[in-house]
Amino acid sequence: MQNIRFENGRLFILDQTQLPEKEEYIEMHNIEDCFYAIKILQVRGAPAIGIFAGYALALFHGNNIQKAKTYLDSARPTAVNLSWATERIVQAFNNGKNLIDEAVSIHNEDMEMCRKISEYGLSLLKDGDGILTHCNAGELATSKYGTGLGPLILGKEKGLNFHVFCDETRPLLQGARLTAYELEKCGTDVTLICDNMASLVMKKGLINAVLVGCDRVAANGDTANKIGTSGAAILAKHYGIPFYVLGPYSTIDFQTLTGDDIVIEERDADEIKTMFYEKPTALPETKCFNPAFDVTDNSLITAIITDKGIAYPPFNKSLKELLV
Amino acid sequence: MQNIRFENGRLFILDQTQLPEKEEYIEMHNIEDCFYAIKILQVRGAPAIGIFAGYALALFHGNNIQKAKTYLDSARPTAVNLSWATERIVQAFNNGKNLIDEAVSIHNEDMEMCRKISEYGLSLLKDGDGILTHCNAGELATSKYGTGLGPLILGKEKGLNFHVFCDETRPLLQGARLTAYELEKCGTDVTLICDNMASLVMKKGLINAVLVGCDRVAANGDTANKIGTSGAAILAKHYGIPFYVLGPYSTIDFQTLTGDDIVIEERDADEIKTMFYEKPTALPETKCFNPAFDVTDNSLITAIITDKGIAYPPFNKSLKELLV
Repeated sequence: MQNIRFENGRLFILDQTQLPEKEEYIEMHNIEDCFYAIKILQVRGAPAIGIFAGYALALFHGNNIQKAKTYLDSARPTAVNLSWATERIVQAFNNGKNLIDEAVSIHNEDMEMCRKISEYGLSLLKDGDGILTHCNAGELATSKYGTGLGPLILGKEKGLNFHVFCDETRPLLQGARLTAYELEKCGTDVTLICDNMASLVMKKGLINAVLVGCDRVAANGDTANKIGTSGAAILAKHYGIPFYVLGPYSTIDFQTLTGDDIVIEERDADEIKTMFYEKPTALPETKCFNPAFDVTDNSLITAIITDKGIAYPPFNKSLKELLV
Repeated sequence: MQNIRFENGRLFILDQTQLPEKEEYIEMHNIEDCFYAIKILQVRGAPAIGIFAGYALALFHGNNIQKAKTYLDSARPTAVNLSWATERIVQAFNNGKNLIDEAVSIHNEDMEMCRKISEYGLSLLKDGDGILTHCNAGELATSKYGTGLGPLILGKEKGLNFHVFCDETRPLLQGARLTAYELEKCGTDVTLICDNMASLVMKKGLINAVLVGCDRVAANGDTANKIGTSGAAILAKHYGIPFYVLGPYSTIDFQTLTGDDIVIEERDADEIKTMFYEKPTALPETKCFNPAFDVTDNSLITAIITDKGIAYPPFNKSLKELLV
């Protein structure tokens, strides 16, 4: 599975909005196609958006690269990887470098980063382990392997067999639509559950470790990730199961001292009270609270696994030491 | 709102599978209709199933009441109220009593029981409290007021205002479809959340107590209830929030010594991997684990509130003493 394909000068993406029902690659013909693909989440996951935007700008910048960059960046203003990648292409342009080479570099560096995270993560697991995952931090969200799912996909490549329980991850069901799909495709033994079944699965002794990705890690290790992550961490603590956060070192934001400083985005109530904006599941007038993320307290995290190594508590110290 | 209506010798139920979109009463014509109604959750909630099964067996036992009882009981093996109610009808039959009168008695006793549970529960809450609920244990699940929701509905009747957060309760969304609907209908301030958001809501200090119903309580207080209940209890413990189980005294099964002896029913995978059997949310070949219940360890329960009074730990002792 390759979510972003650059072949003979042509750029294709796997349309993630159609998964798992349909695997369709669509070709990008101009910068507007690329803007739209990011906007409607045909390509998603912070690293994947960055890689895609690199190719997009390299190929379709037209005669005003700065204007094209600003346009692309506006498709997902909160995605830091997006403007970071387009800035690299602009710099390469200003320095007279080959833009396609730069885009390929961004892509390759991401693969390297994912491989390192996956190797470090794999060092903490053993063949046959039962694993719980939440949301999607796999190949579809990155270049290869993924972050949260990286050790599982790399492990499968190396002939290890994990038994993965995958939270469906309400309300948008990335676990069901993407994680279960990805793991299934690479031949991993995967069982889909509703988020509220994790406690029972842990109680039954089926889980040896919990693996999740991260959207932002504060200096003290408090971790913002998909809503529900903190609940899974509390359950893991209760049952004495290690809880691992995996992500690129660049996800650690040393300017953010604790999780209290992380602003949680709230999303549309209709994500909860309708099934994909089709069938209603509650009265139309029902009030909803729909936070996209929550913050997992560092006291609940066994280790934070990055491309620079593995940090253990106290994270205030260990996260900085990874660079030493 | 009345979920079970017995009128002029005819038995009607409010079809809960169609809520909240449509309020439709359907008539039962034979024991197969009744079996099916329990099986597919047109009628649900332990007490409501008991009341319904009472009428069902009284009306449609045919020429072999024991066989009819066994058949009905098999529709929902975990629901102890079901076999308890059908046993009462069989006993009435054996004693030459009027079976309809016996069914009406079961119904009236349930109303009385719900009122008592609601009064006891209300004594533990104060005006303005934030409450988390899971699944549905309200009027739709019983005769009136409910068990888990009883204190909230009775409280509203008495002019108290609670701020209720209601878990949607995957996979069948009884929280969204039924609890939010019921509380909304009686004017309570209710906010619908996905199950995996409970941790964040508790962390924000919005919850003063968790109220849930129960399907079966073991002699030591271990409680089987809708899947996800044990997770909510672990979160409550973590955040120092009281966790209350509410149910009729008859739900306590002294023959079942601990929760380990409670068999957990597994349901159809398509409840998870499709949206109401329509749109797929995962690959068709994806394996699912779909337990209908989980068991909450007695160590996580602050009190068990019954129509005979409130039991506190150690439950092995206190549950029996309620009858003294």
